[in-house]
Amino acid sequence: MTTLPPVDATVAAARERVAAWRAAGARIGFVPTMGALHAGHLALVRNARRSADRVIVSVFVNPTQFAPTEDFGAYPRDLDGDLGKLASVGADAVFAPTTPEMYPAGFSTEIRVGGPSAGLETDFRPHFFAGVATVVAKLLVAVGPDVAVFGEKDFQQLLVVRRLVADLRLPVGIIGHPVEREPDGLALSSRNAYLSPAERATAPTLHAALAAAATSIRAGADADATLAAARARLADAGFVVDYVELRNAADLSPVDRTSTGPLRLLAAARLGRTRLIDNIAV
Amino acid sequence: MTTLPPVDATVAAARERVAAWRAAGARIGFVPTMGALHAGHLALVRNARRSADRVIVSVFVNPTQFAPTEDFGAYPRDLDGDLGKLASVGADAVFAPTTPEMYPAGFSTEIRVGGPSAGLETDFRPHFFAGVATVVAKLLVAVGPDVAVFGEKDFQQLLVVRRLVADLRLPVGIIGHPVEREPDGLALSSRNAYLSPAERATAPTLHAALAAAATSIRAGADADATLAAARARLADAGFVVDYVELRNAADLSPVDRTSTGPLRLLAAARLGRTRLIDNIAV
Repeated sequence: MTTLPPVDATVAAARERVAAWRAAGARIGFVPTMGALHAGHLALVRNARRSADRVIVSVFVNPTQFAPTEDFGAYPRDLDGDLGKLASVGADAVFAPTTPEMYPAGFSTEIRVGGPSAGLETDFRPHFFAGVATVVAKLLVAVGPDVAVFGEKDFQQLLVVRRLVADLRLPVGIIGHPVEREPDGLALSSRNAYLSPAERATAPTLHAALAAAATSIRAGADADATLAAARARLADAGFVVDYVELRNAADLSPVDRTSTGPLRLLAAARLGRTRLIDNIAV
Repeated sequence: MTTLPPVDATVAAARERVAAWRAAGARIGFVPTMGALHAGHLALVRNARRSADRVIVSVFVNPTQFAPTEDFGAYPRDLDGDLGKLASVGADAVFAPTTPEMYPAGFSTEIRVGGPSAGLETDFRPHFFAGVATVVAKLLVAVGPDVAVFGEKDFQQLLVVRRLVADLRLPVGIIGHPVEREPDGLALSSRNAYLSPAERATAPTLHAALAAAATSIRAGADADATLAAARARLADAGFVVDYVELRNAADLSPVDRTSTGPLRLLAAARLGRTRLIDNIAV
C-alpha cells in the first residue's frame, strides 16, 4: 500500500517542513495546483522531481481568481483522490490551506501585473490575473521553494508569473512545462470533466485548428486570414470563440513588423458551459 | 576615523551579505529609508540594533510613491553624509540600489493594499501607498530581514506595511518606532529642510494643535468640535490644512459608537510648498 504524502494545512507548518528539508541540504521544488489532479498535473510533479530533491504540491481552489459568475462553487474538489495520485508520482508533501488561512478577516492586498496580462484572458476574465498573481505570490512566499513548475497550458498565466517573480525579485526559478495532451490532441484540463460526450468529441478541434493555423503561418500564410479561418472552423464545430490570437511568445505583446522572436498562437473557446483554452508555438 | 558601512548596490549583493550573516547565526534587522537621514532615522537604526545582531539600512528614493507634481527630483539626496551618520549608530551595511536595479525595463507589478490605506493620505496622494507597498515588499523580499523598523511619524504607512506583511505572510516582524521630535515638538522629517526660517517657526504648531486636541478629546470634549478647532488654529497660523482626523488606531477605520480601542489623531498640512504630517495617540 502506498503511503500518502503528509498534508500541511497552515503556512507555518509548510514553512517548517521546507525549512527542515533545506537545513538537510535539499533543493525544494513546488507545484501549485487547484486540485482535481489529472495526468497534466502529475507531469508537472515529475518535472519538479527532476529539478529538486523534495517536492511539495499545493492544493487550493483560489476564490479570488473566479468571478462571481464563474465556476468556483462547482470547481471539482477531491483531496483524497489527489493525495493518492500525488503519492504515485513521489510528491513529498502537500500544502492544502483553508480559505481563511490564505485570506483571513481583514485581508486587503492585491497584486496587479501589467505587461503580459494585457488582453487575451483579461478581456474575458478581467480580475483573473490579479487573483492569480496575489495567490501565487502568497504561495511562493509561504513555501519558499528553489524552483516552481507551471504548465504552459495556461501560457499567459505562466508569463504573468514570470513577470511577477522577476518584478518582486522572488528567489525562485520558474519552470514552464509543455502542454500535456490526450491522444486526440485535447489539452489536459480539470475542466474537461465538465464536457458532455458530444462536447468531448468536438473538443480536440481546438488543438487541431491551432496546429493547422500554426503550420500555415510558419509556411508564410497571411496571419490575419489564417486566424479568421481558425475562428470560423471553431465556430463551425460548435464553439463560441472568445479569441484566437497571435502574439510574441516572450511577453505576449502584439505582433507587428518589428517582431523577430518566437510567436505563440493562443485561443479560448466555449463548448456549452465549459470554457477551454489552448496555445501552441509557431 | 570611523569606518563607513559597506554599500551593496544590487539585490544579489545584499542577499548574499544577509545570507552570510544568517549562516553565522545572526538575527537581521532592517531599516528602509529614502536617505537624507536625520536623527529620526538614526533612532530607527538604534531601535533595530536593540532587536537584532546585524542591521542593514536601505537608502532608495522610490520614484513610484511620488506623483508627477511632487518633489521626487528635489527630494534631498546625500549618500556620503548618510554613510557617516549610519556609521555613528553602528549600521552594519547599506543597501543603496539604483532605480533600474529596482525597476528594470518591463517592470509592471503593483501591490495595492486596501484597509488602512483608505482616506487620509490617499485623499491627497492617491498613488502613494501602492508605490510604498510595492517598494516595501520588494525591499523586504530582497533583504530578507527578521525584523524591520518603521517610524510612527508615517503612521498610516506603518499600518499599511503591517497589513501588507500580514496579507502576504512575509516572514518578518514589523516594529513601529515612536515619533522623534525637535525640542519644540516638530516631528523630525527630511522635508523640514525645505522650511524657510519663518515657516520653521510656525511648524511646531502642527504638533501643538494635535496635542491640545488629544488632551481635549481625552477629557471628554466633542470630537468634531475639537477637530474643527484644531483645523482653525492651524489655518490661523498660516497652514493650508489637508486633514485633521480622528481614527481607530488599530486599522485607521472611522471612529463611531462601536469604537472601543485606542484612537489616533492624524494630520497633514502645508506651509508654503512644504507638506508636513504628524499624528498622536489619544
